[in-house]
Amino acid sequence: MAGNSFGDLFRITTFGESHGKAIGVVIDGFPAGIEINEELIHQDLQRRRPGQSKFTTQRKETEDFQILSGIFEGKSIGSPIAVTIPNADARSKDYAHLEKSFRPSHADFTYEAKYGHRDHRGGGRSSARETAARVVAGSFAKMLLGQVGIEIVAYVSSVANINATVDNKKVSLAEVEKSLVRCPDEEASSEMEQLINSVRKEGDTVGGIVSCVVKNVPAGLGEPVFDKLHADLGKAMLSINAVKGFEIGSGFASTKMKGSEHNDAFTSEGGKIVTETNNSGGVQGGISNGMNITFNVAFKPVATIMSDQKSVNSEGTETTVAGKGRHDPCVVPRAVPIVEAMAAIVLVDHYLRNKTQQVG
Amino acid sequence: MAGNSFGDLFRITTFGESHGKAIGVVIDGFPAGIEINEELIHQDLQRRRPGQSKFTTQRKETEDFQILSGIFEGKSIGSPIAVTIPNADARSKDYAHLEKSFRPSHADFTYEAKYGHRDHRGGGRSSARETAARVVAGSFAKMLLGQVGIEIVAYVSSVANINATVDNKKVSLAEVEKSLVRCPDEEASSEMEQLINSVRKEGDTVGGIVSCVVKNVPAGLGEPVFDKLHADLGKAMLSINAVKGFEIGSGFASTKMKGSEHNDAFTSEGGKIVTETNNSGGVQGGISNGMNITFNVAFKPVATIMSDQKSVNSEGTETTVAGKGRHDPCVVPRAVPIVEAMAAIVLVDHYLRNKTQQVG
Amino acid sequence: MAGNSFGDLFRITTFGESHGKAIGVVIDGFPAGIEINEELIHQDLQRRRPGQSKFTTQRKETEDFQILSGIFEGKSIGSPIAVTIPNADARSKDYAHLEKSFRPSHADFTYEAKYGHRDHRGGGRSSARETAARVVAGSFAKMLLGQVGIEIVAYVSSVANINATVDNKKVSLAEVEKSLVRCPDEEASSEMEQLINSVRKEGDTVGGIVSCVVKNVPAGLGEPVFDKLHADLGKAMLSINAVKGFEIGSGFASTKMKGSEHNDAFTSEGGKIVTETNNSGGVQGGISNGMNITFNVAFKPVATIMSDQKSVNSEGTETTVAGKGRHDPCVVPRAVPIVEAMAAIVLVDHYLRNKTQQVG
Amino acid sequence: MAGNSFGDLFRITTFGESHGKAIGVVIDGFPAGIEINEELIHQDLQRRRPGQSKFTTQRKETEDFQILSGIFEGKSIGSPIAVTIPNADARSKDYAHLEKSFRPSHADFTYEAKYGHRDHRGGGRSSARETAARVVAGSFAKMLLGQVGIEIVAYVSSVANINATVDNKKVSLAEVEKSLVRCPDEEASSEMEQLINSVRKEGDTVGGIVSCVVKNVPAGLGEPVFDKLHADLGKAMLSINAVKGFEIGSGFASTKMKGSEHNDAFTSEGGKIVTETNNSGGVQGGISNGMNITFNVAFKPVATIMSDQKSVNSEGTETTVAGKGRHDPCVVPRAVPIVEAMAAIVLVDHYLRNKTQQVG
Repeated sequence: MAGNSFGDLFRITTFGESHGKAIGVVIDGFPAGIEINEELIHQDLQRRRPGQSKFTTQRKETEDFQILSGIFEGKSIGSPIAVTIPNADARSKDYAHLEKSFRPSHADFTYEAKYGHRDHRGGGRSSARETAARVVAGSFAKMLLGQVGIEIVAYVSSVANINATVDNKKVSLAEVEKSLVRCPDEEASSEMEQLINSVRKEGDTVGGIVSCVVKNVPAGLGEPVFDKLHADLGKAMLSINAVKGFEIGSGFASTKMKGSEHNDAFTSEGGKIVTETNNSGGVQGGISNGMNITFNVAFKPVATIMSDQKSVNSEGTETTVAGKGRHDPCVVPRAVPIVEAMAAIVLVDHYLRNKTQQVG
Repeated sequence: MAGNSFGDLFRITTFGESHGKAIGVVIDGFPAGIEINEELIHQDLQRRRPGQSKFTTQRKETEDFQILSGIFEGKSIGSPIAVTIPNADARSKDYAHLEKSFRPSHADFTYEAKYGHRDHRGGGRSSARETAARVVAGSFAKMLLGQVGIEIVAYVSSVANINATVDNKKVSLAEVEKSLVRCPDEEASSEMEQLINSVRKEGDTVGGIVSCVVKNVPAGLGEPVFDKLHADLGKAMLSINAVKGFEIGSGFASTKMKGSEHNDAFTSEGGKIVTETNNSGGVQGGISNGMNITFNVAFKPVATIMSDQKSVNSEGTETTVAGKGRHDPCVVPRAVPIVEAMAAIVLVDHYLRNKTQQVG
Repeated sequence: MAGNSFGDLFRITTFGESHGKAIGVVIDGFPAGIEINEELIHQDLQRRRPGQSKFTTQRKETEDFQILSGIFEGKSIGSPIAVTIPNADARSKDYAHLEKSFRPSHADFTYEAKYGHRDHRGGGRSSARETAARVVAGSFAKMLLGQVGIEIVAYVSSVANINATVDNKKVSLAEVEKSLVRCPDEEASSEMEQLINSVRKEGDTVGGIVSCVVKNVPAGLGEPVFDKLHADLGKAMLSINAVKGFEIGSGFASTKMKGSEHNDAFTSEGGKIVTETNNSGGVQGGISNGMNITFNVAFKPVATIMSDQKSVNSEGTETTVAGKGRHDPCVVPRAVPIVEAMAAIVLVDHYLRNKTQQVG
Repeated sequence: MAGNSFGDLFRITTFGESHGKAIGVVIDGFPAGIEINEELIHQDLQRRRPGQSKFTTQRKETEDFQILSGIFEGKSIGSPIAVTIPNADARSKDYAHLEKSFRPSHADFTYEAKYGHRDHRGGGRSSARETAARVVAGSFAKMLLGQVGIEIVAYVSSVANINATVDNKKVSLAEVEKSLVRCPDEEASSEMEQLINSVRKEGDTVGGIVSCVVKNVPAGLGEPVFDKLHADLGKAMLSINAVKGFEIGSGFASTKMKGSEHNDAFTSEGGKIVTETNNSGGVQGGISNGMNITFNVAFKPVATIMSDQKSVNSEGTETTVAGKGRHDPCVVPRAVPIVEAMAAIVLVDHYLRNKTQQVG
């Protein structure tokens, strides 16, 4: 109710502020008997980690994590899985100057308005540090999806005005990870690198789009009215820090199309009912139709920049927020595993929900 | 869990298929003592109703509704408000030819895959008829919002390639309702009318965008992590039939901006902390900041067109779906009150949730 | 959140006041493809109905009900099932004298304290009339349980100091229904009849216990920590009007036993693991163990009596509440189908929840 | 959904197995600005701790706990509070003999049936060790209740056939804590001590009743239909290990009473509406009426005894479970703080819920 949980049957609850003792997640509803792959958690955390390359903030987040419960002899036992990640590199004093002033387009002001009392250090609970806990939960979700054959690939499809050309049917994790910016179009990838580099030197930031494709989804996942599969995917993505938009399949472009162009004709392919086009993005009437699920997530330029900015303090007096501390010129490369994680969490939840729709 | 409810503290549950006896809604969590305005429900249903103009399907939906519970002597009593709307004009035989074939880009195939047994008439539960129940719930939500001063205005901002120019600070319901297509930019409105008319003659359909602005929202609404205010608004909108995308504030355009351009500087205006620009769309860190909340909702062209379409039947054999029945060339004008309704429901829910964040 | 819904995966929401237009229920999460038995609903409603015999209030409640949605060609389709029951015999004027005074041990005072504005007629939302909606939902739950072989039998095991002797392994619905007071022990049944008759003549009321046995439950239903099967059964029963206590298996008597007497030894019977005794009441560690589930529900004497009673009005001034209107000398015979209904609802919910604990 | 969370607006999620790395709890929905009293947590944990006296198991549970999040400068900040308690004294080898056999009246068999794969050491997730996490959450709940003046006192009212006489209006925590068995009736307390001592020597166990009184509750807490205050209290108590029954106010005794004796007459006392008797136990129609809330909780004799017991193993073959390991002859003295904790959690949840019933 206070918004720190997500999912119904597969339900995660995250906790922790960026400069507290630890962050973490409790995963409830993870079925028993699933083999645990700790290496996957390490990999996914590493992919999200700041400081992996010059394009990302130099804060050294540790990848240490500790699984406290829910696993016995390498397999899940059906009880909640709690994982903590210590906050190793918490330089609170970097934030002392922010105790009473509100950074533009951060959550400082709104938290103050909502709670009265807040942890101002590094954004506290509003920090993107929280997404590390989501990534861990996502790794667990992927272990289950792997067992039923569902695969998720996310990648950077644009940075500012540089757009990649990617074939959703063929794109693979390996291809994505070859690129420093996680864009599987080599040419676009190199242009993006250059742009981010120059933006970083300016002390500025830039936005971009992460695209995602989910493969081998059985038809039937998603609930028909409010919990449509793409509505839950949309909420999941919009809950990630810095996300301003979400679209499924043809998305905003569909608003410019006619029905006769947009409709996906059904046909039969090797005994399986498929559609000739996929403007639906794999979801029709809120329920998966067996085609690839495809969606895009819009990230704004991150708010922390290196120049001084005009602001006010808690008394409403004008002040200046100085540009210092660590700084991430473009968040989308690191956002790729976060998008994957939230997609995996939604898919597992709906996979489990769908098991209850018919008896016997 | 089966997805027919929405909201936490203000919780609506809708029911009913398009060709069953009735549709309806149960609203739970409506506080006691609110004056009930039945006229508002009539107006909102009338605005959503098919057949209001030549641009909308000629099916004559009744605006009759019956409030069964929850009201005593003109005021709410805190118990659930149940409302039913009979299905008066249910011409089931129009749909006999669809019993075994799947209309392209409808939910026929996915419902069959999910449930095995389905009501094929008019889409059954997947029909947009369900949104009438949402509109009723939205009218109740507006009664509460009216009492605390929050106002919602939605309008059509584009149809295909025709884009309106609208000032979100000034736009009003009255202005919107002057236009047949609910676009408050007169010139764009008349172009949209012409386009929809010509598309209708072709037996085709076209998509568009509904924009929405929420005014006088206090700072502090929204929960910080998963239930960010814009994440819940996004889910609410994506759950509406035919919606393919959602964006808050600067949305997808933000991906092309730099942080230095995008950040909303804080300033003080008559003792109130405000931002100079509003790229945030009134929400920062998932919590309202007191500025207007602004968002866009992308509607695809509706799938029912008047030409024959290639498809398959439940056995996977190729077949043709004939273009007959009633047909709505452009859904966005009628979608305006639905967007308002879902926005109102989200706002009331978060208004109530926020009352529990501090004690005393 | 406002407490008008029950269950997680099988979720019912009831609505309606005793003297409003109708009461009803929306059932969400009923799986598709279940055959609907309307006759069972009629029977169960008839068993709960006031006025079935001289032992129950003479208010003539109608057994009419209307299924508005969720069924197509005699089977469920997976969408919500809404059922309404009109309030036919609503003699509001009987309650005019109660508009401002609080009946002792009713909910008049607490509703006034909570909501400020209330429907005082017949208790409004607090009336036991609401339980008719539960009975309808219970009938649907029984249809599903029937399909998987689970059977529920409830009966009156005591009225005041008259205790029945009943063998839980053998008791059947047919046997229970032979008795006017729904007690399958003939001798006790006839004593109970006499007692209730004499209490009725005094204008007084008397309490009693309803016992329930659930047969053929597979091992594994129930969640381990907070949603233990008997915890959910307990909540379900305690939510019924006039219930003051709940116990599972050995219940309060267990507090007087030693562990060596109380423990249920495991043994093997025809290849199935069973227990020699059943002090556990079929539930161990919150999870069904395959033995009969047995529990008792304590009903206080109903509060409406025919003598004048001391009370206060809303201003706190002393007043007298006159004993008039209709009156039910002992509620337990009519409570039997309500206990069955709530048990069925809990069982279906946990049956569906258990389907998600293992993958594949 | 998997049952490891409790509460709606004040929501706790516990995790951890008895012989894993740690147990813990995440508390979501704790309002901001509440002063944190760590000493209270220490005290409450100490009162629950095994090994406090010769009457309780000699396992040395640590009272160490670590607050990982949600607190800043000594006050809550509205974000989730995560607390871990390490499992210091986990002698797994004590349980090696139980890997394949099922202890009578424990959860070994039902967990095996439900999950297939389980942690057999010390009961794993089913161990009463989990209740330490509840006690911590309860301490936080008490901090909030203290701020609004609500007070909770629980005590042992019976052990086997020894019944205490206690005046609920006067009983205090100090008085309870004077007694080794937490029974504020000195004479009964000393008899209970003797009985428990003799049972311990026999290697046997014995049950008992914990009574609880909640003072200074404002009228209006509780939701009217399914989430009645006593229904939620009942579920909370029934979810505690070894609990077999719950009753509110007059409870099972009410079944033997007449309405004319049982009804609580209203009267006025210093301008406040009160009842002359309190058979209702402070709750009418599911909502608090401002009188003391009083209820009883029945605990069975714990299942671990020192004699050999007949059982079967996972193949269904007959076997003997040896009586060894640590052993708690009577759990009710240690259960007192657990009952308090669960009561506090329910009260806070409903206190917050009630804030949303009226607007303005």
